[in-house]
Amino acid sequence: RHYSIAFIPGDGIGVDVLGEGRKVLDALSSLDGGLKIGYQEFDWSCEYYMNNGVMMPENGLDQLKGHDSIYLGAVGYPGVPDHVSLWGLLLPIRRQFQQYINLRPVKLLRGIKPPLAGKGLEDLDFIVIRENNEGEYSSIGGRMYEGTEMDMAIQSAVFTRHGVERVLRYAFSLASSKGKRKKLTAATKSNGINHTMPFWDEYVRKINSEYPDVATEITHIDALAAFFVTKPESFDVVVASNLFGDILTDLGAAIVGGLGIAPSANINPEKNFPSMFEPVHGSAPDIAGKGIANPTAAIWCAGMMLDHLGEYELAAVLMESLQQVLEEGAALTPDLGGKASTWEFGDEVCRKILGK
Amino acid sequence: RHYSIAFIPGDGIGVDVLGEGRKVLDALSSLDGGLKIGYQEFDWSCEYYMNNGVMMPENGLDQLKGHDSIYLGAVGYPGVPDHVSLWGLLLPIRRQFQQYINLRPVKLLRGIKPPLAGKGLEDLDFIVIRENNEGEYSSIGGRMYEGTEMDMAIQSAVFTRHGVERVLRYAFSLASSKGKRKKLTAATKSNGINHTMPFWDEYVRKINSEYPDVATEITHIDALAAFFVTKPESFDVVVASNLFGDILTDLGAAIVGGLGIAPSANINPEKNFPSMFEPVHGSAPDIAGKGIANPTAAIWCAGMMLDHLGEYELAAVLMESLQQVLEEGAALTPDLGGKASTWEFGDEVCRKILGK
Ligand SMILES: CC(C)[C@H](C(=O)O)[C@@H](O)C(=O)O
Ligand SMILES: CC(C)[C@H](C(=O)O)[C@@H](O)C(=O)O
Repeated sequence: RHYSIAFIPGDGIGVDVLGEGRKVLDALSSLDGGLKIGYQEFDWSCEYYMNNGVMMPENGLDQLKGHDSIYLGAVGYPGVPDHVSLWGLLLPIRRQFQQYINLRPVKLLRGIKPPLAGKGLEDLDFIVIRENNEGEYSSIGGRMYEGTEMDMAIQSAVFTRHGVERVLRYAFSLASSKGKRKKLTAATKSNGINHTMPFWDEYVRKINSEYPDVATEITHIDALAAFFVTKPESFDVVVASNLFGDILTDLGAAIVGGLGIAPSANINPEKNFPSMFEPVHGSAPDIAGKGIANPTAAIWCAGMMLDHLGEYELAAVLMESLQQVLEEGAALTPDLGGKASTWEFGDEVCRKILGK
Repeated sequence: RHYSIAFIPGDGIGVDVLGEGRKVLDALSSLDGGLKIGYQEFDWSCEYYMNNGVMMPENGLDQLKGHDSIYLGAVGYPGVPDHVSLWGLLLPIRRQFQQYINLRPVKLLRGIKPPLAGKGLEDLDFIVIRENNEGEYSSIGGRMYEGTEMDMAIQSAVFTRHGVERVLRYAFSLASSKGKRKKLTAATKSNGINHTMPFWDEYVRKINSEYPDVATEITHIDALAAFFVTKPESFDVVVASNLFGDILTDLGAAIVGGLGIAPSANINPEKNFPSMFEPVHGSAPDIAGKGIANPTAAIWCAGMMLDHLGEYELAAVLMESLQQVLEEGAALTPDLGGKASTWEFGDEVCRKILGK
C-alpha cells in the first residue's frame, strides 16, 4: 500500500502541527512495513504570496490532482487580507476538487476535560456534516457607491438542488448506516432568511422521504447553537450549510475541549479528486513558531486521512495512542494545562504507537 | 408618569409569560403611586392569521405607532410557515419602526447555575448589540427553475453605510461610556464571505477612529462562537450583523442559563418610533399553555422597558426582586429545576416587589 500525499503546511501554526502529524504517520509506517507514504511538499502560503503575488501557481490544482490525499495545516497571516489568502488557496481546493462534504466529528477524546459542567464522553459524541462548496460562501456580490454616503455591499448566498441534495444524501445515509440513533438534525434559519432557507428545508424533507428510518429534526441555527451547549447529548448527525456548519463546528470544537483539538475532512465522496484533511483551527499567528501549538487536531486529521484511504486498523492505532497520551497527561501542551512542546507531544504519540 | 403600552402576547408561551411581566409591572405601579401604565391589547398572532389571512391588519403599524413601547411575547406556531408569521408581524415592526438596535445582555443573574464549569457572575457579564434592520435578513432573493434538476434559490445580504455606521456608533458609544473595560468585539466572517464582511470590517475600523479610547477586536464568527464558551470573561460589548447577532445571542442565552432567561430590546434610539421588548425565546409550542414556561425573560424585558422609559429606580427594584426569587429557589419553573408554575413564579416576584 503506497500512498502519495500532497503536504501543505501553509501558515503560522499550520507548519508547527503538520510536522507532528507526519511524524505520527511515519511511526505507523515503521509499525506496519506494508504502509508506504510518500510526500510532496508545497510551500504555498501567505509568505509565498508575498514573494509571488499569488497563493499558489496557476497550475497549482493540477499539481495536487494526482495525489491520494492533501494534508493541509492552516492558511492566513497578518499582512495578507484573509479573503485574499483563503480565496487563493483553501477555498479553490475545496471547490475545484468537489470536496462538498466537510466532515467534522464533535467527539470528546479520553483525557480531555470538557468545559460543560456535568457532560462526559457519552454526552459529547456526534458528527457535523458541513456543506463545503456553495451556500453563503458564494463570492457573488460586490460594492456600489464606494466613497459616498450611499456606499453599500451586497453578497448572495446560492443554494442549488444539485448542491443541497448531494450533501443531504450523504448526511442521511451516514445517519442511517452509522448513526448511534439514526437521527439527523438539519440547521436552518427559514424564519429569518426567507428564500434560501425554506428551499433547504424543502429538500431536507424530500431526501428524508428516501431515508424513512432516519428521525429528522429541522432546527433554527440560533437555537441549535444554544443546544450544542445545553443538550449536546441529543445530537447524532448534524447537517448544515457552509456558513452554519462553519459556526457550529468551531462551537463544537469548543464544547469538546477547544480549537486545538478539532479535525476536519474535506471529502470528495466519488473519489474523482483527492480529499483534503485539515485542522479546524486556523494559523494562530500569535503563537506560531513558539513550539506551544497543540498538534492533536493535526494528528487526528492524519487518522481521518488513513480512514479515508481504507487503513482502518492503523487509524484506530493512531486514535488509541493519541488518547492514551491525552489521558496520561505527561506530555500536554499549555492549552491543555501542560508544559510540553508541540514536538514533545508528537514524540509521545509516536512512542505509544511503537509500544515503547 | 403615564405610559401607554402596546401589548402583543402573540403565540404559544408568549401568552403565558407576557401575563407575568404585566403582573410585575402592576405590582410596581402599586408600589409607586406615580407610575401609571395603560395597556392596549392586540391579538395579532398565528391564530389571527388563520382567521384573517394576515398576521396583523393593514394599518397595524399605525395602530402601534402612538404607544410609548411595544411589549411582545413570541411569534410563530406550527401550521403557519415561520417565514410567513415572522415577516408578517415581528420583522416589519423592527424595520418600519427603525428599531435598528437589538440590545441583548448576556449576564448571569444571581441564583442561576451556568452550564460552563468554573464560570461565575464575574465571568458572564457582557452585552451584545445586534444590527436589527438589514444584513442577511434582506428578503431580497428568489427561486428559479423550480421543479427541475436546476432548481435553485438565491438570497442577498445587504449592508449599507447608513445601516452599518449607525449600529457601530451605538456600540462604540456604549463601550466607551458604559463598558466595563471599554472593549468592543466585532463579529465578522470576512475570510469566507468576501464582499459584505470586508465592507463591515472597514466601517468597524473607521468608526473606531471616532472612539479611539475603545479597544477593538474583529473576530470571525466561528471563533467568536467558540470563545463564548471558552472565554466569556473576555467580552465587554459585542457588535454583530443581524444573523450573527441572532446566533450569538441564543448562544449567549445558553451560557447564562438557558433560553427561558434571555431578554431583548429592539430600540429606536432616536425615539421617533416606539421600541419593542421581547424575550429571546420563541413560542415553544411544545410547552405552550401548560403553565410551565419560565417567565424570567419576559419579566426582565419589562425591566428593560422601564429603563428605556427612564424609570431607572423601578427597573432596579424589578431586577433585584427577580434575582431574589431565583436565589431563594422556592418558586422555580421546571427548566430551572423547580416545580413552580409560570404564575407562581410571577406571583413570587410581585411579593418581593411589594415587600411581602
Ligand atoms: C423569530 C426570528 C425571525 C427571530 C430572529 O431571527 O430575529 C428570533 O430568532 C430572534 O432572535 O428574535
Ligand atoms: C478560513 C475560513 C475561510 C474557513 C471557513 O470558514 O471555511 C475556516 O474557518 C474553516 O472552518 O475551515
